[in-house]
Amino acid sequence: MPYPYENLKKMNPTELLFQHRSIRKYSSKPIEPTLLNRLLEAGTRASTTGNMQVYSIIVTQDQERKDQLKKCHFNQAMVSEAPVVLTFCADVNRFNQWCKARHAEPGYNNFLWFINGAIDAILAAQNVCIAAEDAGLGICYLGTATYMADEIIELLKLPHGVVPVTAITVGYPSETPDLTDRLPLEAVVHHEEYSPYSTEKINALYHEKENLELTKKLLEENQLPNLAQIFTEKRYKKTDNEFFSEKFMKTLIKQGFFND
Amino acid sequence: MPYPYENLKKMNPTELLFQHRSIRKYSSKPIEPTLLNRLLEAGTRASTTGNMQVYSIIVTQDQERKDQLKKCHFNQAMVSEAPVVLTFCADVNRFNQWCKARHAEPGYNNFLWFINGAIDAILAAQNVCIAAEDAGLGICYLGTATYMADEIIELLKLPHGVVPVTAITVGYPSETPDLTDRLPLEAVVHHEEYSPYSTEKINALYHEKENLELTKKLLEENQLPNLAQIFTEKRYKKTDNEFFSEKFMKTLIKQGFFND
Repeated sequence: MPYPYENLKKMNPTELLFQHRSIRKYSSKPIEPTLLNRLLEAGTRASTTGNMQVYSIIVTQDQERKDQLKKCHFNQAMVSEAPVVLTFCADVNRFNQWCKARHAEPGYNNFLWFINGAIDAILAAQNVCIAAEDAGLGICYLGTATYMADEIIELLKLPHGVVPVTAITVGYPSETPDLTDRLPLEAVVHHEEYSPYSTEKINALYHEKENLELTKKLLEENQLPNLAQIFTEKRYKKTDNEFFSEKFMKTLIKQGFFND
Repeated sequence: MPYPYENLKKMNPTELLFQHRSIRKYSSKPIEPTLLNRLLEAGTRASTTGNMQVYSIIVTQDQERKDQLKKCHFNQAMVSEAPVVLTFCADVNRFNQWCKARHAEPGYNNFLWFINGAIDAILAAQNVCIAAEDAGLGICYLGTATYMADEIIELLKLPHGVVPVTAITVGYPSETPDLTDRLPLEAVVHHEEYSPYSTEKINALYHEKENLELTKKLLEENQLPNLAQIFTEKRYKKTDNEFFSEKFMKTLIKQGFFND
């Protein structure tokens, strides 16, 4: 099966961005170490707070560890099937150690620096993803990295000052999914001031999404009257959201991001 | 003066990533509306949590508002000088309104969904930046967006459920800065498990940065014995970090991200 990104190799950067789809099925072809390093290095070229690089990237390639990591990511098969999983972490530990070695008193064990580290980590992640797709690889983000942060911390032996923010699977695609829909641009863009949404406007902005064939199929499968209820009743339920909010906050406290 | 990105137009995506530098000085040349829309649309093609797009982008082009926004960003001149400032926000407000209009009970006013919205917003931001550089524009991230979130909320009239996460200036460059240094790749990448840093390792990893001409100049200007102390004593001081941590947390609570 040809790699779906094969024909993108001649694309310019913006065209490549418009071709992004998440890849959840991978061939067994490994990623060459020199290519992997190039992707990671592309990650480090992203903007970073004060050029401090308050993030770390953990590379998982060992099959046994990928199988364990899969459990942390709600058993999504792609985590053990992809040749590489990358976990992007906010990391003030390295910076703190550097400061201490220079008799400088660090002051980064706080919420602001979790945020700065998270931004750094996510910018690096997106650069890695774009470089990966440019090389004919496919990626998928794992939102579960924050849901299961404490389990990942244990598995990857992340010290105080380090917390996972996101993760991606990377590998050569063995599927060619369609582009997914997006809301019309005017749904997410506001000029000068935030424009409130009337119910009429909401109806118009969500009309296309609510009338996709995919949506109709989901409604039938789930026996629910509308797409919004699939999100609130099935995919991202209030009780789960509140449970994982509290869990992640506890992890941030444990890892030292609240003046510990 | 030629735009420094002019010669990048034939570059492939990965080469473009390796050429990124923050641009803080802009020519007065405006950004065509069709180009701006294309950049924003490239932003929306980034991965997003459950394809929910829990973010919004506020476009600031009005000079008076840019001047006010500049005050929110610690008076950085580029905020009023760049033709466009984009503020990227975590936004559960639109999703909540959609749910309510469909008799679905939303459960997104919590910390987990601030995080998910922040990740969505930052991935969109990085795509916009890459598309901008591909078009010969320059960008600079404004880390101050979280420091001054409540002032930005007021200026841009952001409702409950919406909070700024990052911002960028965008425009045609009128400077050609050098690439900035980065730590060696092995400083930020760990294989299989997080490798602790010995003082010896820290010394080796920071050796190049500590011996840059730029660093030597900074030490002289600041009359401090080492670069780490420039960060802890001048740029990002503990008392400021703790002040802005508390300020941002209060803003998250006020905007409803703690079950409000």
